[in-house]
Amino acid sequence: MKIRILITGGTFDKEYDELTGRLFFRDTHLPEMLRLGRCRLDVAIETVMMIDSLELEDSGRMAIVERARESAETAIVITHGTDTIVETARALAAGALRDKTIVLTGAMVPYAFGSSDGLFNLGSALSFVQVLPPGVYVAMNGQHFPWNGVDKNRATGSFEPV
Amino acid sequence: MKIRILITGGTFDKEYDELTGRLFFRDTHLPEMLRLGRCRLDVAIETVMMIDSLELEDSGRMAIVERARESAETAIVITHGTDTIVETARALAAGALRDKTIVLTGAMVPYAFGSSDGLFNLGSALSFVQVLPPGVYVAMNGQHFPWNGVDKNRATGSFEPV
Amino acid sequence: MKIRILITGGTFDKEYDELTGRLFFRDTHLPEMLRLGRCRLDVAIETVMMIDSLELEDSGRMAIVERARESAETAIVITHGTDTIVETARALAAGALRDKTIVLTGAMVPYAFGSSDGLFNLGSALSFVQVLPPGVYVAMNGQHFPWNGVDKNRATGSFEPV
Amino acid sequence: MKIRILITGGTFDKEYDELTGRLFFRDTHLPEMLRLGRCRLDVAIETVMMIDSLELEDSGRMAIVERARESAETAIVITHGTDTIVETARALAAGALRDKTIVLTGAMVPYAFGSSDGLFNLGSALSFVQVLPPGVYVAMNGQHFPWNGVDKNRATGSFEPV
Repeated sequence: MKIRILITGGTFDKEYDELTGRLFFRDTHLPEMLRLGRCRLDVAIETVMMIDSLELEDSGRMAIVERARESAETAIVITHGTDTIVETARALAAGALRDKTIVLTGAMVPYAFGSSDGLFNLGSALSFVQVLPPGVYVAMNGQHFPWNGVDKNRATGSFEPV
Repeated sequence: MKIRILITGGTFDKEYDELTGRLFFRDTHLPEMLRLGRCRLDVAIETVMMIDSLELEDSGRMAIVERARESAETAIVITHGTDTIVETARALAAGALRDKTIVLTGAMVPYAFGSSDGLFNLGSALSFVQVLPPGVYVAMNGQHFPWNGVDKNRATGSFEPV
Repeated sequence: MKIRILITGGTFDKEYDELTGRLFFRDTHLPEMLRLGRCRLDVAIETVMMIDSLELEDSGRMAIVERARESAETAIVITHGTDTIVETARALAAGALRDKTIVLTGAMVPYAFGSSDGLFNLGSALSFVQVLPPGVYVAMNGQHFPWNGVDKNRATGSFEPV
Repeated sequence: MKIRILITGGTFDKEYDELTGRLFFRDTHLPEMLRLGRCRLDVAIETVMMIDSLELEDSGRMAIVERARESAETAIVITHGTDTIVETARALAAGALRDKTIVLTGAMVPYAFGSSDGLFNLGSALSFVQVLPPGVYVAMNGQHFPWNGVDKNRATGSFEPV
């Protein structure tokens, strides 16, 4: 089974700019994370965008759906900012990708900052995508949720069933 | 769903003794790893032993099977040294635990050493255990294998189907 | 010799707030850094403020000078944001603390982010303060500069003689 | 001022071999550590050997003295295993290198293991070597000791005056 990984940015891939003291995006850390995890899955990594998901608009969201639709692989993991990950999951579900298993995941702390949940979430998302039936899911906190059964609790930063 | 995590030691939990320059075991790092992963699963952690799996003998292996059998939970993750993880998987399969999903996982580099695959593997094992049908599996390198379909390639450190 | 460490904040002590995605200050990381460095010096740590040095005004700068003046120790290390570290060094020099060796240092990347220069700079500043004659110095990049002979190159993030 | 850094191995540079589970030496981490510390000193790095200092014999020790003697630079930092760092300091002092400032330093935990004191000690040694008068010193734990006034306390792992 080949898995497509679509990168959209989010906290996952933020870095610290030591000249300005601000967070920014450069290249994705996914290849480095897969190396660290000694991942032996057959994956194709594709950067769709590098964006804070609070800045993601409808056109960008449609671009993600489009890339998922055009993917030859039926197992797709999408890294995404957690703030609007549920909106993008909804757009994917509306996109009529009935035969694909799509798992969106994110991170609360940038991978580059050492204390990140990103590696845990990536291992989790890549595992769920191999065994869940077709559908759109969000994988966070070791759990998986159907796209229409989850929301981010902004007070705790955790994802909860709704 | 509640998940039982059985700790048996292995590279996962090795630490560096700065007075002797040797690797040793102290407490498990699992609780810290679950915190880092912002894991919100309902888990019960139980340390069965803290041992290098090369030193694991039949009696120790039987103790692990016994703890899995007595576990009230039907989803069980076992952290284990990679060198004999397949032998323990075989013992578990022989233990007639037909109604349980048991996923063994390990690490190639100690979690405490920063560049570990442990967090990735833990996220992976905890995800597989929630969705795989009853059986005994090894989860490494982002993949999962049935207990009788895997072996460690000692030249590369990777797990491969057999 | 006892050394006083005055904490004023700066990049050194910034952390990532995973709920807001912003950088903020909580407690200083100095005690943890000294533990990591296995530091056996006799130090007294005092938090004067926790502030981004771009927000440091004259009154705050005077508070730092005052704390240095009142310090019983003649060896003083000050952790400080790099953006205005030279201004504070100048204020300390004008403060007529003629009998004291004062070394200011900072970091380009927060200690909490893993890839920080903070531990290197701290080891450097604590060493310089033990052997330099009385005066006010800035220690960055492994180097030490007199207060009136240094400036931050904002294009490179390095400190250079002027 | 140009500083020569002589690498001899020691815990500083040990790595974890994930195939054998043993510690070993590959290349030195010094260039990476200097990058992390944003070091702007003019340094020349030279690997004399990569060895556990418990295995260092007289001939090896003489090779270190020889390299220090032949160094054109009068400021020399030597990274060294802590177990016999004092013996090598003594050999250097006996080597009649009267015009040079030589600072030996080491680490209790390998740099590659994340929780190392190595970066702190390196910042410290590079600072002491710039300002101490000619002589042979050991820099550990934020402190510096003359070669004939220090010993490692093997029970605590700290260096103490004798």
